[in-house]
Amino acid sequence: MAQALSLGQEIVGRINELATISETPEHLARIFLTREHRIAAELILTWMREAGMRAHLDAIGNVCGHYEGTSPGLPCLMLGSHYDTVRDAGKWDGPLGLITAISCVADLNRRGRRPPFAIEITGFADEEGVRFASTLLGSRAVAGTFDESVLNGRDRDGASMRDALREFGLDPDHIGAAARARRELLAYLELHIEQGPVLEAQNLPVGVVTAIAGATRLAARLTGMAGHAGTVPMALRRDALTGAAECIGSIEQFCRTDANGLVGTVGYIHAEPGATNVIPGQVSFTIDIRAPTDGHRQRAVADIVRQIEAIASRRELALQLDVTHENRTAPCAPWLKAQIAQAIAAEGFPVFELPSGAGHDGMAMIDIADVGMVFVRCRGGISHHPDEHVELADADVGARVLLRVIENFRARKG
Amino acid sequence: MAQALSLGQEIVGRINELATISETPEHLARIFLTREHRIAAELILTWMREAGMRAHLDAIGNVCGHYEGTSPGLPCLMLGSHYDTVRDAGKWDGPLGLITAISCVADLNRRGRRPPFAIEITGFADEEGVRFASTLLGSRAVAGTFDESVLNGRDRDGASMRDALREFGLDPDHIGAAARARRELLAYLELHIEQGPVLEAQNLPVGVVTAIAGATRLAARLTGMAGHAGTVPMALRRDALTGAAECIGSIEQFCRTDANGLVGTVGYIHAEPGATNVIPGQVSFTIDIRAPTDGHRQRAVADIVRQIEAIASRRELALQLDVTHENRTAPCAPWLKAQIAQAIAAEGFPVFELPSGAGHDGMAMIDIADVGMVFVRCRGGISHHPDEHVELADADVGARVLLRVIENFRARKG
Repeated sequence: MAQALSLGQEIVGRINELATISETPEHLARIFLTREHRIAAELILTWMREAGMRAHLDAIGNVCGHYEGTSPGLPCLMLGSHYDTVRDAGKWDGPLGLITAISCVADLNRRGRRPPFAIEITGFADEEGVRFASTLLGSRAVAGTFDESVLNGRDRDGASMRDALREFGLDPDHIGAAARARRELLAYLELHIEQGPVLEAQNLPVGVVTAIAGATRLAARLTGMAGHAGTVPMALRRDALTGAAECIGSIEQFCRTDANGLVGTVGYIHAEPGATNVIPGQVSFTIDIRAPTDGHRQRAVADIVRQIEAIASRRELALQLDVTHENRTAPCAPWLKAQIAQAIAAEGFPVFELPSGAGHDGMAMIDIADVGMVFVRCRGGISHHPDEHVELADADVGARVLLRVIENFRARKG
Repeated sequence: MAQALSLGQEIVGRINELATISETPEHLARIFLTREHRIAAELILTWMREAGMRAHLDAIGNVCGHYEGTSPGLPCLMLGSHYDTVRDAGKWDGPLGLITAISCVADLNRRGRRPPFAIEITGFADEEGVRFASTLLGSRAVAGTFDESVLNGRDRDGASMRDALREFGLDPDHIGAAARARRELLAYLELHIEQGPVLEAQNLPVGVVTAIAGATRLAARLTGMAGHAGTVPMALRRDALTGAAECIGSIEQFCRTDANGLVGTVGYIHAEPGATNVIPGQVSFTIDIRAPTDGHRQRAVADIVRQIEAIASRRELALQLDVTHENRTAPCAPWLKAQIAQAIAAEGFPVFELPSGAGHDGMAMIDIADVGMVFVRCRGGISHHPDEHVELADADVGARVLLRVIENFRARKG
């Protein structure tokens, strides 16, 4: 029956099946170390085994599949993406790459093909960092760069990652067992939706990624003076929320006037005490800054920090501003870009290169392997939203390109 | 032993005792229909009975004390204030007026004095409106203007007011039993901390309130488009939070440039989905607008609404903007102001009149009685904050003024 489906049809069917595994039926959310995480992992392991792979859950909750090459013990081409989601997510961000990789291996398996290297597929358990505010947990564990201090991080219900791992049946003291060695990997390849509007504007189904843009995240806290909303004259207020509003406006204005692709986002805000009739005494918010090069991003962060400091100082608000996350730009390897480009051309499409504004597991995997990425067009550039959408025809092109890269893969000389 | 204490000493001791009844020991919060509400009510009923009053809990959870006059069945001078708090509150806002009234009656009782009218004291169960976002619940029930539709309101844990009343042991279908008739009341008098910096600036312990300023509260919701923080160019964003920030800045700017005491506050804000790496698609916030006259406030609200509509329209954000609360200005009765002024003068202080920027239970009580208010100085004008403070000497002056008003009270002719 599977043979009767195109790769695209099989992939879209599985995307829809995986999307039913969600915290609530109305809003897709599949969060690290939850019941949904486990159910999704079991389903993906089943798909891997049906594709002729050995499959298991690793020490951080990644799903790992191994497809043997022409002989046992060969180093692998690793394919992967993540299967966690943001809250109220789309169903393609992450799962498309993972499911496409499985379908490609299933296709090889149906045709009895064994490449002169092993193929591994890793479905990363947490890329988005929703639960513990720390991203790339799955791929960092595989790259051996997992920061043990994040085990003490707590979710919004107060549970520590350490306890959540134990409750899931994993041992927080043995996350190191998930780490892979550089010599085991020939390369890391990931297919992913673009999550931006560029391929759509180019009228192209797929593109070659040049680099994954770095990101700096900051946590800001402004402290003023709470007071009664009716009795404190405007001139005497030290309102933390009007201060935060000025900071948010300043970040937006700074990024809007940048001509080189700088983006800045305040995604989270919380005002204390948070009552209608009380002037907020304290406000916390996050800042996410990205740019196509590390230098540009770092200069922008420094400028934005100076502006926020000036606003806080003028308003007599105490400011706490911490960098919570910093990812350097991860350039894709030229030799992998070339093999992806050849596959796209062979499928009959113009080769178009673009950077990734979003972070991906390749940012962690680059520590143990050269990284290549294929982008698939998504409608309207919309992502992290229920309207996120990929056409079946584009999913099919993506799968054919990835399959062609695998079948023609030549390890880097040297 | 009580005789050995000054009124001020007794009052401050009880203020501190009541402040120990809190949701958490670190942050004072005494919220409607909670365990703390019940414990506080029991304590206040005990104090009322010790002061020679009959005392009971009414149909909404107000504590009600009755001190008989020279003969049974006389109409009453009603004294009162509220005993609920905001979150992370000060301990004086509300309790000072209630506890002072009880101490005054206790003093009459110790001296065997019976006035030619009854004295009633009402401790209102919910003035702040923290739990169900609807204020003056206790005094509206007494005034017979309780809006039954608020019974369907829900707290942040999803419990309806109807269910919360039942769980507290009250019958939501019989709130009408708390209502009092105009003929039963000679006047309503309330002593309260100023919650502003005016008396301190005048170097005066007490003042006569001219009017309780009206307030308009609005709930705003801006809806744009959620999206990935890394991939959506600034120019293509419909970010609900940067839109809300512009609205907050605009409200602050509008009120700051007003020379006639207009104040505007955004106390609550919530951004959805609220993740660091997602552009907020929807933001809700509250707006509280107050001014010394109804006309000035209404014009300001109309101007602010127009500004918010323009911001939403320019940013292509959908706007939902609802008035959730509107209280007209409640002028204090000239004949009660005169009796309060005489008492202040008799205590040897200059008579100083000032409006109340904060709302008070008198806003509801004015529907069934003429209203008078005495303000007591508080440090730095700070209120709705743990630093809220009243000097013992000022509490004592306030009590002596209130006692003098009671002992010399003359009902309005006609």
